[in-house]
Amino acid sequence: MTVSEIERLIQLLARLPGLGPRSARRAVLQMIKRPETLMLPLAGALRQAAENIRTCANCGNLDTADPCALCRDTRRDVTLICVVEEVADLWAVERSGGYKGLYHVLGGTLSALDGRGPAQLNIGPLIARVEESRQGQRPVAEVILALSTTVDGQTTAHYIAERLAGTGVAVSRLAQGVPVGGELDYLDDGTLNAALKARRPA
Amino acid sequence: MTVSEIERLIQLLARLPGLGPRSARRAVLQMIKRPETLMLPLAGALRQAAENIRTCANCGNLDTADPCALCRDTRRDVTLICVVEEVADLWAVERSGGYKGLYHVLGGTLSALDGRGPAQLNIGPLIARVEESRQGQRPVAEVILALSTTVDGQTTAHYIAERLAGTGVAVSRLAQGVPVGGELDYLDDGTLNAALKARRPA
Repeated sequence: MTVSEIERLIQLLARLPGLGPRSARRAVLQMIKRPETLMLPLAGALRQAAENIRTCANCGNLDTADPCALCRDTRRDVTLICVVEEVADLWAVERSGGYKGLYHVLGGTLSALDGRGPAQLNIGPLIARVEESRQGQRPVAEVILALSTTVDGQTTAHYIAERLAGTGVAVSRLAQGVPVGGELDYLDDGTLNAALKARRPA
Repeated sequence: MTVSEIERLIQLLARLPGLGPRSARRAVLQMIKRPETLMLPLAGALRQAAENIRTCANCGNLDTADPCALCRDTRRDVTLICVVEEVADLWAVERSGGYKGLYHVLGGTLSALDGRGPAQLNIGPLIARVEESRQGQRPVAEVILALSTTVDGQTTAHYIAERLAGTGVAVSRLAQGVPVGGELDYLDDGTLNAALKARRPA
């Protein structure tokens, strides 16, 4: 490896989100000091991931198996589908630990600016999945739209709710309000307004 | 690869400086979308680096060859040695483009707090390298101490200057002053004072 090959490693690392050229250089030097405990394991894990990870044809999750581990888990509630934008959001809901249903990953939101229509997203398969289950033994009872509270996210939620209207399934959204541990003084006006409107008896 | 193996990849990435768990997750998802152009090349570059990179026995630089490409480069001025703390500093001086001599990487600074004495650094070999060259055809004429302007860095510079005092070699330090493009108003007092003391005729 010549100096320019070290440079190539730095350039590859610098293309990761959150790493610039400077932190990529620091990372490379750090790794070179620990080849056995960091560099080689990382190289192996990356190659394995690149070769083995695929997208679940049922829900859009990432796993080595298709259907993925979540779709195959018989302990999960198949009558509940949580719709998320990206796999990262699925992971976030899983980390929260409060959800035991299935998922459906859209792959983004509708966006007029970026030219993303329903055909570019995993929406058709969601409708088909719900309709198909309604013929079966344990039909989907509720679809939870866990999408961003941005304009694009809410447009997407609205569109999916309309598409699901005829299927007889209940459609819900995440509650909006004060974050746990959040101080009112630091909260934006929109969130505070939403929390006031959705107030509940104490 | 199970979900826990994706998790392992994230954990390995999160150990790099500048990446936390959140940005490591984003990086992994980004890479999974581009296995051929990012993930596999990165895996290959890491494995190659771990297997091939070694420390130059002469100067402490990192390269696949020993002596390193800089030490072997016959166009460089062997009568000049620039002493730096880390390989990252060597790269920084090389990027500046203004230096054509050789280097010596110490591997850190003396530090009473961290218990690093002269024996833990690459100082003995520097003295030996200078003394040895003084017997040869093209002896080292000047050692430039390009160390941090911290207490530890300056202690180390002082220590090395004393050790080199008997060898007849000239010892110099980097100039201190106003950074190029720097505004006086934003400069710390210490730097401004140093720049004033070291003022030159315009």
